[in-house]
Amino acid sequence: MTPTLQLAFDLIARRSVTPDDDGCQQLMMDRLAAAGFNNEPLRFEEVDNFWSRRGNEAPVVCFAGHTDVVPTGPEANWNHAPFIPQIVDGLLYGRGAADMKGSLAAMVVAVENFVAKHPDHKGSIAFLITSDEEGPAKNGTVKVVETLEARNEKIDMCIVGEPSSTNQTGDVVKNGRRGSLGCVLKVKGIQGHVAYPHLAKNPVHLAAPALAELAAEEWDQGNEFFPATSFQISNINAGTGATNVIPGECEVVFNFRFSTELTAEILQERTEAILNKHGLEYDIDWNLSGQPFLTSRGALVEASVQAIKEVTGIDTELSTAGGTSDGRFIAPTGAQVLELGPCNATIHKVDEHIKADDLDILTTIYERTLELLLA
Amino acid sequence: MTPTLQLAFDLIARRSVTPDDDGCQQLMMDRLAAAGFNNEPLRFEEVDNFWSRRGNEAPVVCFAGHTDVVPTGPEANWNHAPFIPQIVDGLLYGRGAADMKGSLAAMVVAVENFVAKHPDHKGSIAFLITSDEEGPAKNGTVKVVETLEARNEKIDMCIVGEPSSTNQTGDVVKNGRRGSLGCVLKVKGIQGHVAYPHLAKNPVHLAAPALAELAAEEWDQGNEFFPATSFQISNINAGTGATNVIPGECEVVFNFRFSTELTAEILQERTEAILNKHGLEYDIDWNLSGQPFLTSRGALVEASVQAIKEVTGIDTELSTAGGTSDGRFIAPTGAQVLELGPCNATIHKVDEHIKADDLDILTTIYERTLELLLA
Repeated sequence: MTPTLQLAFDLIARRSVTPDDDGCQQLMMDRLAAAGFNNEPLRFEEVDNFWSRRGNEAPVVCFAGHTDVVPTGPEANWNHAPFIPQIVDGLLYGRGAADMKGSLAAMVVAVENFVAKHPDHKGSIAFLITSDEEGPAKNGTVKVVETLEARNEKIDMCIVGEPSSTNQTGDVVKNGRRGSLGCVLKVKGIQGHVAYPHLAKNPVHLAAPALAELAAEEWDQGNEFFPATSFQISNINAGTGATNVIPGECEVVFNFRFSTELTAEILQERTEAILNKHGLEYDIDWNLSGQPFLTSRGALVEASVQAIKEVTGIDTELSTAGGTSDGRFIAPTGAQVLELGPCNATIHKVDEHIKADDLDILTTIYERTLELLLA
Repeated sequence: MTPTLQLAFDLIARRSVTPDDDGCQQLMMDRLAAAGFNNEPLRFEEVDNFWSRRGNEAPVVCFAGHTDVVPTGPEANWNHAPFIPQIVDGLLYGRGAADMKGSLAAMVVAVENFVAKHPDHKGSIAFLITSDEEGPAKNGTVKVVETLEARNEKIDMCIVGEPSSTNQTGDVVKNGRRGSLGCVLKVKGIQGHVAYPHLAKNPVHLAAPALAELAAEEWDQGNEFFPATSFQISNINAGTGATNVIPGECEVVFNFRFSTELTAEILQERTEAILNKHGLEYDIDWNLSGQPFLTSRGALVEASVQAIKEVTGIDTELSTAGGTSDGRFIAPTGAQVLELGPCNATIHKVDEHIKADDLDILTTIYERTLELLLA
């Protein structure tokens, strides 16, 4: 087995179901210390995190990621036990193989290789590792970033090891993420008997045309890097269960995934303008869970694109699609942020797996990126 | 106490919470037997009913009603114990005082008085009494009507003792009821992640414009006797509870209260045409719980209107508003059906009550109606 696969095995074998780290971080820190890194464990409440750095100069090129994995569900549903890593027909199976213990192993080995060849590299290399990316994300990356900011320690470029690829390692790199804005809307009516509708006000009837308009609205057209902003209702509930009662309230939960063409404030204003136009009475509760961010072409993107091309021959695609990641906490510091990792087809599913060879390819891509930036 | 109040007391004191009769019907049958009636207890499953008739000729003038009452809720919330009838400040308190043990007492005493004066009356007098009007209404009036139909026994005119009045006994008589048509609609979508809406189909977004159109539709304008047909959504539910999942299905429960200008078939067709126009995929399950019925002016209405005018001085209002009653099962046999009873302001509430004097007024109205029809 290659060093990357061996380390991936060691990490997958640990039952680090979010927010439990189960010793993964110590394993990584031991390896990094041996490569000349200065480790700084940062535990916040029940969450283990660490910051590790080699060098004192700028620019700081940081690898970011998480040791926690999502729960397995009933293990009986797995054909390959989730915490007993194995390679079958060239596929590495195990919870976290793709998301993202494979990437963590690749990062560590890439850095070991790079440091061995370039012990006096330019700038600094760092690791920002958490164990609550898959959980509430309250005591992880966001707290580490706060700690760094408080002492004016700056990340210039950050590679997040999230599984960004679609069909082949390196075919897609995420150079930004849409913002995520949630909302709980309670449309007010007046409860009553269906036989006496003149004494009641049906909040579902009142809400329906407004929801139809929100669903049909073109919020923006996106831009070069972002798809158009998307509005989606995830939950709607009204009614007592009884068939003869007009409900008093209708609760609607919806979410925007939004581009850099808009702000959360603009979305809130435009949404409420539509609700008001329809004369609704309502309570509304907004929750901004992530600002959109974008790393345009620049040193980090160029180095990654070139490294992927050299290693795999692929002209990688820059994308901002998909869900949120901890990159949303790092980008606001001004860092260039990019997500580059293995294929995401099986993440969060049973029998999570990737091609075993892809981890060595990923290791080489990471190492080559470091060379282009810091050699 | 007057005979009607005394009998009302005896009935209210029995805990006949639906579908339990708790001996109310035996009490009534004993009185009716003494007045020359032929009683026929008709128990279907757990429900006591009886049919009772005096005379063999047509026309058959029937009093219909129910001995069961709705549950009390926590009795501690009552200022006047629900099953200990009492008169306080001229008000008769107790569960069923208004709905409808007061009416039952008035019917029995009215018939006793009438028979005493007119032992050889024309036609026949009958009682159709059930103990499941407040419950599922599966083994009550509908089954008794089936029994009568099976042997070609016909009700020509029927007075249902439901509390029809608003401010004064006799101010409103219900000479019909709207139909009630229920529906459970399941709009189909494709579940997915809110971050990848192009891979999903949001059934709430698809349903909203169709629901808005259904809510805005003018189904008819009603007619002389019926208000306009009304569409009401009672329940809408979609979503897993998670805020990042586009639901796969949206369930909408709605109900029509409809006039005689339309049929259930027409409403179904028009509803489905609107759903189809919006391109929805759906499952739909209709439930017709009552056809509309109307008793236009004729012998029964004329007699009741005249009796109310003579006894109270009121020009009564004919109405078809409000919820369903067992009249919906009797009207389809071709009977003239009318609902005439006390004020309904406190029905189904705690401290249910009516003016004690109103029961004697109601007794006189019933008796006078019988005289006008059968003396």
